[in-house]
Amino acid sequence: QRVRDLGIHPGILPTGPLNAITDVEGVMVGHQTLIEEDNIRTGVTAILPHSGNLYRERVPAAVYVGNGFGKALGFTQVQELGEMETPIALTNTLSIFNAAHGVADYVLNLPGNENVGSVNPVVGETNDGWLNDIRARVVDTEDVYKAIESAESGPVAEGNVGAGTGTRALGFKGGIGTSSRQLPENRGGYTVGVLVQSNFGGILTVNGAPVGEELGNHYLSSRQTTPSGQPTDLGAQNTRLTALSGLTGDTDGYDFDVDGSVMIVVATDAPITSRNLERLAKRAFMGIARVGGFASNGSGDYVIAFSTHPDVRNNLDDSGQTRQITELDNNAVSPLFLAAVEATEEAILNSLFMAETMDGQNGRTQEALPIDEVMEILEKYGADQ
Amino acid sequence: QRVRDLGIHPGILPTGPLNAITDVEGVMVGHQTLIEEDNIRTGVTAILPHSGNLYRERVPAAVYVGNGFGKALGFTQVQELGEMETPIALTNTLSIFNAAHGVADYVLNLPGNENVGSVNPVVGETNDGWLNDIRARVVDTEDVYKAIESAESGPVAEGNVGAGTGTRALGFKGGIGTSSRQLPENRGGYTVGVLVQSNFGGILTVNGAPVGEELGNHYLSSRQTTPSGQPTDLGAQNTRLTALSGLTGDTDGYDFDVDGSVMIVVATDAPITSRNLERLAKRAFMGIARVGGFASNGSGDYVIAFSTHPDVRNNLDDSGQTRQITELDNNAVSPLFLAAVEATEEAILNSLFMAETMDGQNGRTQEALPIDEVMEILEKYGADQ
Amino acid sequence: QRVRDLGIHPGILPTGPLNAITDVEGVMVGHQTLIEEDNIRTGVTAILPHSGNLYRERVPAAVYVGNGFGKALGFTQVQELGEMETPIALTNTLSIFNAAHGVADYVLNLPGNENVGSVNPVVGETNDGWLNDIRARVVDTEDVYKAIESAESGPVAEGNVGAGTGTRALGFKGGIGTSSRQLPENRGGYTVGVLVQSNFGGILTVNGAPVGEELGNHYLSSRQTTPSGQPTDLGAQNTRLTALSGLTGDTDGYDFDVDGSVMIVVATDAPITSRNLERLAKRAFMGIARVGGFASNGSGDYVIAFSTHPDVRNNLDDSGQTRQITELDNNAVSPLFLAAVEATEEAILNSLFMAETMDGQNGRTQEALPIDEVMEILEKYGADQ
Amino acid sequence: QRVRDLGIHPGILPTGPLNAITDVEGVMVGHQTLIEEDNIRTGVTAILPHSGNLYRERVPAAVYVGNGFGKALGFTQVQELGEMETPIALTNTLSIFNAAHGVADYVLNLPGNENVGSVNPVVGETNDGWLNDIRARVVDTEDVYKAIESAESGPVAEGNVGAGTGTRALGFKGGIGTSSRQLPENRGGYTVGVLVQSNFGGILTVNGAPVGEELGNHYLSSRQTTPSGQPTDLGAQNTRLTALSGLTGDTDGYDFDVDGSVMIVVATDAPITSRNLERLAKRAFMGIARVGGFASNGSGDYVIAFSTHPDVRNNLDDSGQTRQITELDNNAVSPLFLAAVEATEEAILNSLFMAETMDGQNGRTQEALPIDEVMEILEKYGADQ
Repeated sequence: QRVRDLGIHPGILPTGPLNAITDVEGVMVGHQTLIEEDNIRTGVTAILPHSGNLYRERVPAAVYVGNGFGKALGFTQVQELGEMETPIALTNTLSIFNAAHGVADYVLNLPGNENVGSVNPVVGETNDGWLNDIRARVVDTEDVYKAIESAESGPVAEGNVGAGTGTRALGFKGGIGTSSRQLPENRGGYTVGVLVQSNFGGILTVNGAPVGEELGNHYLSSRQTTPSGQPTDLGAQNTRLTALSGLTGDTDGYDFDVDGSVMIVVATDAPITSRNLERLAKRAFMGIARVGGFASNGSGDYVIAFSTHPDVRNNLDDSGQTRQITELDNNAVSPLFLAAVEATEEAILNSLFMAETMDGQNGRTQEALPIDEVMEILEKYGADQ
Repeated sequence: QRVRDLGIHPGILPTGPLNAITDVEGVMVGHQTLIEEDNIRTGVTAILPHSGNLYRERVPAAVYVGNGFGKALGFTQVQELGEMETPIALTNTLSIFNAAHGVADYVLNLPGNENVGSVNPVVGETNDGWLNDIRARVVDTEDVYKAIESAESGPVAEGNVGAGTGTRALGFKGGIGTSSRQLPENRGGYTVGVLVQSNFGGILTVNGAPVGEELGNHYLSSRQTTPSGQPTDLGAQNTRLTALSGLTGDTDGYDFDVDGSVMIVVATDAPITSRNLERLAKRAFMGIARVGGFASNGSGDYVIAFSTHPDVRNNLDDSGQTRQITELDNNAVSPLFLAAVEATEEAILNSLFMAETMDGQNGRTQEALPIDEVMEILEKYGADQ
Repeated sequence: QRVRDLGIHPGILPTGPLNAITDVEGVMVGHQTLIEEDNIRTGVTAILPHSGNLYRERVPAAVYVGNGFGKALGFTQVQELGEMETPIALTNTLSIFNAAHGVADYVLNLPGNENVGSVNPVVGETNDGWLNDIRARVVDTEDVYKAIESAESGPVAEGNVGAGTGTRALGFKGGIGTSSRQLPENRGGYTVGVLVQSNFGGILTVNGAPVGEELGNHYLSSRQTTPSGQPTDLGAQNTRLTALSGLTGDTDGYDFDVDGSVMIVVATDAPITSRNLERLAKRAFMGIARVGGFASNGSGDYVIAFSTHPDVRNNLDDSGQTRQITELDNNAVSPLFLAAVEATEEAILNSLFMAETMDGQNGRTQEALPIDEVMEILEKYGADQ
Repeated sequence: QRVRDLGIHPGILPTGPLNAITDVEGVMVGHQTLIEEDNIRTGVTAILPHSGNLYRERVPAAVYVGNGFGKALGFTQVQELGEMETPIALTNTLSIFNAAHGVADYVLNLPGNENVGSVNPVVGETNDGWLNDIRARVVDTEDVYKAIESAESGPVAEGNVGAGTGTRALGFKGGIGTSSRQLPENRGGYTVGVLVQSNFGGILTVNGAPVGEELGNHYLSSRQTTPSGQPTDLGAQNTRLTALSGLTGDTDGYDFDVDGSVMIVVATDAPITSRNLERLAKRAFMGIARVGGFASNGSGDYVIAFSTHPDVRNNLDDSGQTRQITELDNNAVSPLFLAAVEATEEAILNSLFMAETMDGQNGRTQEALPIDEVMEILEKYGADQ
C-alpha cells in the first residue's frame, strides 16, 4: 500500500488526484520489467512530458547533480540549452548505454524526424547489481520501445517495476515511487509531480519517525554487519573500503551498500524555464534528506526537472528568431520549491512501501520494508497520520 | 537550553565534547553583539580556523551556494584556489561590505603581512531587518576586530549573540547555533563541527516532530497570515508579491519572512581538500531540509567548509613548487557527510532553542520558540529523546 | 588613439557608431579618477544599464568566472535570480568593499527605495597595487557617487581613467577600453558592447601580430627579468613563486606580474535572458585569448553581461505572478557570441592603445605601449588593416 | 604536413619531441577508421593515460564544458570524484552510446575486474553527419576494442583517421590533430599534450593570419552563403533557423555547419589533481579562440584533462583510508595554462593541415584546406614562421 493509504501524510501541501507524477497533465509513464530466471531483476522506466513529438515540441528542462557518482546521460546539453528533446528513461548502471541508444533510436524513427542527425537522450540509472546480474546487460532497444510505448497517464505502477525491479534502498527493497503536490489556488494552483528510482542508503526516517533506528537497520548499524565484520557486496568501486573494513575486523562492517543512488524526475505544469527548473530540481535533492539519505560518496543522486506548460515550450517548427513566453516571476516559485521537497519525500517512501521482497542472483533475497512493524513504530511516534 | 540538555538527540552519531564547532581542534569563535536603543539588533560573529596567521598558513576550503539570494563575499576565490586566507565573519546584509573591509583590514595589519596587497575576506550575512534598523549599517571595522579578537576555543555562545542578535527563523527568534559530530575510531575518529546563523523560513521540524504544524506557525499557515487573510512569504525585496498579497504599504503586516537566509560554517579536522570539502558543504545544505527548510526563493543559503588538518594546509612561507599532502580517499568520506547533515540539523535547532524573545525597531517583538509547548509536542511524538 | 583610428580592424563584424559599450542604447558610463600626489593612482568606473531606477526596473544579467582569483561581489545572487539591481562599479582590489558600500548606499537612497532592506551591488576589481598605494584604500562612497552621477551615454573615456587609472596589462600600461559590434539586419541587427578594465598578463597579440614577442616584452620573456634575475613586485600572494624564481636565479625571472586580472562588462540590446547571457559572458572570456591572455593562476578574470531590451526586464512594480517576455531562440544567438569575442578583443586593445605612460608610488613608472614601434610591427605582419 | 613541418610556430613554448599528446609519458593513442562504400566516413579514437589497468590505477581527471550542445558521457562522475577509470574514446554523435558500451565492455573484461559492477566510460563525439551516414550508427563494440588495442605511444596519426574521418572544421576538412608543449626546466620541465577532434565553425586564423577571411570561407561569409544568398550556420538540429534562412527541405544547400563541435583531450605529466586539471581544461577552451572559433550555439565544445604523474594516481588496490600525494602549488600552474592554450591551438591547426579532401554520402565532397594558398597567405602576414 502507498503511504497515504496507510494514513501517513508527509508535509503540509495536498496531493494531486492520483498523488503521482501523472497529475501533471500530459505526463505519461511506462515500465518494462525484466525478471528472468533467477538472475535478471531489472528493467526500464520511461517518462514522457507529453504525447507529441518530444523532439520537435521541446519542454524546458534542467538537471541537478546531487552527488555525481553515476552515469546519467544527456545532462550537459539540457543544461546548456535549457530544454529536453526525448523521453526520459531510467535503467541499470551497465545497461544505460543500450538504453540511451534505444531512446535515440525511438526519436530518430518518429515521423517528422527523418532528417534528424543529433539526439540527446536523457537517461538515468542506479546500480541493481546485488539482485540483478548487471554484467549481463540484458536491456536492449526493444525494451526501451516497450517502456515508451506502454507509457500512459493515470495511476503509476510502483515498487518492483521497470527500473526499480532490482533496486534496494535504506536497507530494504527499493524501487519506483511517485507522488505529487498541488499549490493553493492563490499560489497559482500548479502541480508538482515526482517519480523516483530509489537505490540509496542512509538511516530511514518515515514522516519524521526514526524507523531505521528502531529496526536496527541503517547505515553504520550493527544489523548491517556480517558475522565476519566484513561488508559484503559493496560495489566493485569500493574495493579499498572493503579492504579497510576488513582490516578493522571487529564491529563496523555493514552488509548493504550505502553507496547506491537515486534518480529523481520532477514534472510541473507551472510555467517556469530552465533557471527556475534547476532550482526546483535542487529542492528534490533536499527531499532525500527528509527520509534519512545523506548522499554518500558512492551515490549517484541526479534530478531532472521539466515543465509541461504550453507557454514555455520550444516548438522547432515555429518560425521566427524570437519566442514569446509567459513565465512565473522568481517571487512566485517558493511554493513550488516546497512542493518538490514534499513530493520527493513521499515518492521515496512510496517506492519502499510498494516494493515487495525480491530474490535474485546468487541466492540472494532483499527483504521489503516490514510494513506491520513499521506501522507500529509510526504509531509510537505519532507519525501514522 | 540546548537541545541535548533537554534530552533531544537528533541523528545517530555522537557529538564532540562541547557539541560545538570548537570541538574541531584549533577553531575559535568570537561574537560582537550590537544592541543599541530600541532599533539596533545586530552584530558580528567571527570564526577562525586556527590561531596563527590565517593568510600565511592557509586552510583548504570550499563553498556551496544552496540558494544564492544573498551577498556572501569571497566565494569565487575560495572556489578557484581551494583555500581560505582570512577569518570568516558573519553579519547583516547591508553591513557586509563594512565587515569585509574590516576583515581585510585585520589581515593587512597582521605581523608578516606588511606587503600584502590582496586579501579575500570570506563574509556571510543574513537579513535581520525586521528587528534591526538594517539601513543604519552600524557595523564598522572596530566591531569586526572585537569579534575576531574575542574569538576563543571552548564553549560557544548561542542564540541572540553576534550575527544572530536580530535574526528570525522558522517563525521564531533565530540566532547563532552550533553542534558537532565525532566519527567512530575505525572511521578515522574525525570531528565535524557546524555553526549557523539562522534566519530562514519553512515548517519547523524538531527531531522529526512537526512542531511548526502543531504550533500553527509555519510557511503558508494561517498564523502566518495577514489581517487580509493571505499568507505571507514576503521580504522587503519582494515588492511584487507584496502587492499581490494585498499588503502594499503595510510592511509591518506580515508575520515572518520566509525569505530569510542561513549561513552555515562547517569545520573538520579530517584531512580533506577542496573537492571533498565542497561535497561536505553540500551535505550541510541537506541539513536544512531536516528541520523543515526548503530554500525559498528569497533565501541566501550559503555554506563554507574548511579543514584544519595540518597535513593539508598551504603555508605561504614554505619553499618549493610542490606540496606533499595526505588526504582521505573518496571512499572514506561518507561518514563525514552524515556528520555534516546531523550537525547542521542540530546547530539550527540550538540556534532556535537558545534564542530568547527579542524586541526591536518599530515596536516589534519576535517571540522565541515556546520551549514548554515544544517539549510537550516532542513528547507526544516521541521526539524528546 | 583607438585601434580603429590607427586603421586596425580586428574581427569581421562592423562596430556600432561609437565603437563603445554605449552603442547599446541606454547604457551609460562614468569615471571617477583618483590621482593624488605620487602614490594614489586609482579610481572608480560605473556602468549603468539604463537611466531609470535600476533596483526597481531590473535587467536580466549573468556572470562568468574565467579565473576566480579576485574579489568581485554580487555574483551569486545574479546567478541565482538572473537579474541585476544596481549599477556595476569597477575599482581596485582593496577598495572593493568601500565601493560596494557606496553602490548600496546609492541604491538605498534612490527615490522609491526608501523601504529597501537588501541590495546586491555588482562590483569588480583588479589590482593596481604596483603603481597605486592600494593599501591606502582611498576610494570612498563619494567617489562611487561621482562615478555614477557622471555616467552618460556617448563616447567613453579610455586608458588611464576611472578604475583603469593605475592598471597594467600584458607588459604595458593598461586601463579602461571599450568596443562594440553590430549584427547584420538579417541576424536581428542587435548590438553587443564591451567595456574592460585590463590588468592581466600574457603575450600581447594585436590583430594577430605577435607584438609582445617582437618587443621582447611578455610572459616568460627575458625583458621581463630584473638584473638580479628576480621577479619584482609580484603580488604578496605570490610569495612562494617569488622565492622559487629567486632560487632559479639565472634567466627566467620576470619583472611584471602576470597575475593581474581583467574585468569585462558585456551589454547587449538583444532580448536574451540569464542563460544565454551567461553563454555570452563566456565568449568574452574567449576574447582574452585573442590578445594573448591565458588566465594565469593569479588572474581574476570576471565577466558580467546584461541585456537592456525592454521586453526582458523585470519591473518590480508590475503586478501579477507571471511575466511575459519575448526572447531570442537559442538558434539565433551565435552571431552575438562572435560579437562578444570580437568586441572584447578590441576593447582590450583600446585599453592598451589609449593608456599613457604613468608614474606612481615608489618612483615607479609603467610605460605605455610604444605605439610607433607597434605600428611598425603591425605593418610587418599585415595587421595594420 | 604538420604546421611545424611547414615552418609555422604558434606560441612561445617549445614542443615535446613528437609534438603530440604522446609526449606525455605513458599516453597511448589508437584509431579505428571506418570508410565503407560511399556513405560511411567515421571511426573511433582511443586515448589511454597509461598502459595498466585504468580502472584499478586511476588517474586524476577533470572536465570542462565550453559549450554543452553535445552528448559527451561520463562527465558528472569525473567531476564528482576527480578521477577517470577508463580509456577515453571519441566517435560520432549517434554512435556514442555504442562506443560507451564498448568501452565499458573493455573495462569489465580486463583481468582483475571480474567483479566490477560499475564503470564510467568517458566518451566524446562530434557530428560527422554531413559526410557520414550518421543515422546508420555503424560503430560497434569491436571497433572500440580495435581502437583501444591498437593504441600505442609514439607518433599519432592525424587528419582523416579514427573519430576525425568524417569531420569538418572552419569551412574545411577537419579531423584529428595533436600537439604538445614543454615547460622550461625551472618551471618543472613538465609536458602538456593535446589531442583534438575538430568539427567546429568560425573564422579560421592560422598563427594570427586571417586565413578564413582571405579565402572568403568563414562564418557569415558570402562563400558560406546559399544560392538564395543567405549565410548559413545551420545544423540538422536547427530546423527553425533553417526555415528562417529559406532552406527548408534543402539541407544540401549549406556550405558548412558552424554548429559543429570540438572534443579536446589534455594530458600532462605535471602532478596536479582535479581542481587544477579543471583549470587546465578551461585553458584548452581558450585555445579554440586562437584559431577563430567562438563556441557557436550548436557546438559541443568539451575538454577532458588528466595527469599521468604517478604521485597523484589512485590505486584501488592500495590499502588505507588516506592517500599521500605530492602536487604542484597553485602558484606554479600558470606555465601549464599557457602550454594548454598553445598546444590546443596547434593541435587544431594540425587537424586541418593533415586532413585531406574527403568525399562522402550523397555525393558530397569536403575540400581540405588549400595548403599552397594558405602558405601564400601566411607569408603575406609573416605568419609562416
